[in-house]
Amino acid sequence: MTHPVRRADARAMRWEGVDVRAYKQDDGAPFRDVTRQVLFDDPDLACQLRYFEVAPGGHTTLERHAHVHAVMIARGRGECLVGDRVYAIGEHDLVTVPPRTWHQFRAAPDAPLGFLCMVNGERDRPELPGADDLATLKRDPAIARFIGS
Amino acid sequence: MTHPVRRADARAMRWEGVDVRAYKQDDGAPFRDVTRQVLFDDPDLACQLRYFEVAPGGHTTLERHAHVHAVMIARGRGECLVGDRVYAIGEHDLVTVPPRTWHQFRAAPDAPLGFLCMVNGERDRPELPGADDLATLKRDPAIARFIGS
Repeated sequence: MTHPVRRADARAMRWEGVDVRAYKQDDGAPFRDVTRQVLFDDPDLACQLRYFEVAPGGHTTLERHAHVHAVMIARGRGECLVGDRVYAIGEHDLVTVPPRTWHQFRAAPDAPLGFLCMVNGERDRPELPGADDLATLKRDPAIARFIGS
Repeated sequence: MTHPVRRADARAMRWEGVDVRAYKQDDGAPFRDVTRQVLFDDPDLACQLRYFEVAPGGHTTLERHAHVHAVMIARGRGECLVGDRVYAIGEHDLVTVPPRTWHQFRAAPDAPLGFLCMVNGERDRPELPGADDLATLKRDPAIARFIGS
């Protein structure tokens, strides 16, 4: 049996045998200061569990897709856009990103935002917003402020 | 859209809209001082994410089944039996319980053991050990000490 326990460096949010990866391999997906660690990716499980950490002031890619994200904030704080609203988020809050819903996670300027994200193992590729999508989103001043320039 | 964010009482490990449930409905499954909260159970996700908390000195049921558990310790400490070994576990450690493997989680005498557990939505019923299974497990003194009387 493969060793069933992988120790954590709980303070660093690092795990033995888990690589700290680049958040995206794709070109053209704008993001900033995000790491990705795949905690569970077992062929007997239909989902993966990943840990992302956004450094202070950083953000994930603004995107949408058919697959769902189930997110639990593990540490730090920030904001997320889900659909047509921006939410303040902090430790242990739960976020569901429904299918085909624009979403983005941003760390606070002075705190990281670390979160667990459960997703189906089989999933579609994300779609990035076009100029029209961005214009529509930015009609809401709160979203315009969130997305920034 | 259903409200996509559920706030946590991070210190209490409670969430708005999430019931604190009994750990088991089944008769005859021995356990002690365990609560269960289902954090994500979305028809668009092939897995569920649950949060269990074992009070100091308490334990989950000793059992096995075909489905896999992917566990991350959220807080506290204790020990777990996975297969033929007992492991000390603490904050953010990761535990994989392979198919058909005897397993049990026990909180330390003086600390709770709270953990996230990802499982497939469709899964088989657990099997409890018979007298022969227990005798076999208890041949190992470390496991005999862990399981107790």
